[in-house]
Amino acid sequence: MAEWAKQLAGTRAVVLDISGVLYDGGGAGGGVPIPGSIDAVEKIKASGLKLRFCTNETQATRDKFVKKLQRLGFNISVNEVTAPAPAACRILKERNLRPHLLIHDELVPEFDQVDKANPNCVVIGDAADNFSYKNLNEAFRVLIGLENPILISLGRGRYYKETDGLKLDVGVYMKALEYACDIQAEVVGKPAKMFFQSALAEMEVEPQQAIMIGDDIVNDVGGAQQCGMKALQVRTGKYRVGEPQALGPDAAPSLPGSGPRDSSPSSTPSIGESALSLQPPCCPLWDCSTQNLLGCTPPPRVLVCKGNVTSVFLLLGWGPHQ
Amino acid sequence: MAEWAKQLAGTRAVVLDISGVLYDGGGAGGGVPIPGSIDAVEKIKASGLKLRFCTNETQATRDKFVKKLQRLGFNISVNEVTAPAPAACRILKERNLRPHLLIHDELVPEFDQVDKANPNCVVIGDAADNFSYKNLNEAFRVLIGLENPILISLGRGRYYKETDGLKLDVGVYMKALEYACDIQAEVVGKPAKMFFQSALAEMEVEPQQAIMIGDDIVNDVGGAQQCGMKALQVRTGKYRVGEPQALGPDAAPSLPGSGPRDSSPSSTPSIGESALSLQPPCCPLWDCSTQNLLGCTPPPRVLVCKGNVTSVFLLLGWGPHQ
Repeated sequence: MAEWAKQLAGTRAVVLDISGVLYDGGGAGGGVPIPGSIDAVEKIKASGLKLRFCTNETQATRDKFVKKLQRLGFNISVNEVTAPAPAACRILKERNLRPHLLIHDELVPEFDQVDKANPNCVVIGDAADNFSYKNLNEAFRVLIGLENPILISLGRGRYYKETDGLKLDVGVYMKALEYACDIQAEVVGKPAKMFFQSALAEMEVEPQQAIMIGDDIVNDVGGAQQCGMKALQVRTGKYRVGEPQALGPDAAPSLPGSGPRDSSPSSTPSIGESALSLQPPCCPLWDCSTQNLLGCTPPPRVLVCKGNVTSVFLLLGWGPHQ
Repeated sequence: MAEWAKQLAGTRAVVLDISGVLYDGGGAGGGVPIPGSIDAVEKIKASGLKLRFCTNETQATRDKFVKKLQRLGFNISVNEVTAPAPAACRILKERNLRPHLLIHDELVPEFDQVDKANPNCVVIGDAADNFSYKNLNEAFRVLIGLENPILISLGRGRYYKETDGLKLDVGVYMKALEYACDIQAEVVGKPAKMFFQSALAEMEVEPQQAIMIGDDIVNDVGGAQQCGMKALQVRTGKYRVGEPQALGPDAAPSLPGSGPRDSSPSSTPSIGESALSLQPPCCPLWDCSTQNLLGCTPPPRVLVCKGNVTSVFLLLGWGPHQ
């Protein structure tokens, strides 16, 4: 741990995932903050560290999403957020692509300025209930009718957690269309390298000066590591007991208090109970691009923290805190 | 071609795919026969060849499906049909599996005798409009909650053709759940070896004595070849121009009359226009299990006929016919 503290001493910037790290979405109010996370954002901002929020959220425009987070109590503004839809719009314009959209109704305004007549590609986001058979079939027919089918996916996540349980994410439907058409999607959003690079460019820091905090081992941790950043996985959001163990025998030694996901909130280890016990630097064998965590030999060793987002404070030499 | 005719002279049994070979489903009447196919079934039966219908149809019980085909004019009975749902029921009972079902409403009666309380596996079929986000998410939650998630898929087809166009098939949703849960489905139905073997056992013939006729290069042709049978692909149903070309430069030389899929029915080459020009025996490099046709080096050479199901008559030394 001491070794890690030294390594992380040079950290100048923090990149925060939002869903599953700062809040759990869903429910009547649109979600609930994860305990400690509102303060964590304040504390990071007050510290002088650069901060960027890097999300694969595609169920709302960036504007609406940020307003929701502000209502929940977060100190966040639109220009601090890197999100897939604006990045996709830039790509569409650069390449003269006219998308057929399979996205959430709330995201549609992000594409207002994009020509959608006579589509020559498909863009999918986390469409949730819009992922009907009819709509997926329609997207499939557009793709299979193109001489050169282009599928742009706003992320490749498998699932995420909302207050009422796990929900299938866009990556699942991306895989469905990939298989149907025998093609490979282009991913905009995490874990795409370009996406992290654009966040780093916004902060004007080098990859090795930044640390990514996320709950997704592939899209947050893996993507950031591929980009040369440090990264750690919190045990909130979609984190599931057993996940890091699968990545190596000593990736995440069990600790009292590190209860299973979806158990009562009180089982989430607080920062007070020695929330960090980090592993040696991420193994160079970690290869996010394969997406095949269990297929690695030897298995990658992953930087896993033992609690929620505030755990990062110990990493930064600020702890322990209550 | 002469060489093929000789090879096929020993053929004692024909296995016919149904959808896309005998009829195109969909529309008010439930589908329309493909020209020549009603007579083809009669002719094969009259010839003394053994005949079995081998379908991945899972939108109706076998009873209902056969009744529809009879209404359309086909000489077919329930005990001549090998279908995935009855095969799946046998497996569930043998292994004490209690399924959560994600299937078409019309198929549910096939599982009437199966214990479905407290599910310890998921069975998916071609659920069509039942493939809503809500239903797929429900199946996902069952799987992700199991210590040893078992997904049984009634086929792995990508899409099929109905009268109003192409429709996504069960394989697409199988892939979606595989990716979501990081698991591999067990496939019942074509191209599973056991499925073909059960059809052969019903006819009491050896694989090399049987020929499979289908429109799906992976599930019909590939599956049958894996099982030691001969197989050919017709140019009706889901057949698409360019498909065999992708499998090898001389897999399917273009011929006048071999129009693109979905063009007017009259462009389907009739048996009168030299409908067959077969390629050398299926290459041993054909590996259906990889599902990666384009990844083979050298590309497999596939037995492709130039027309509809009646083309097989030439193969059997009966042609040409008008």
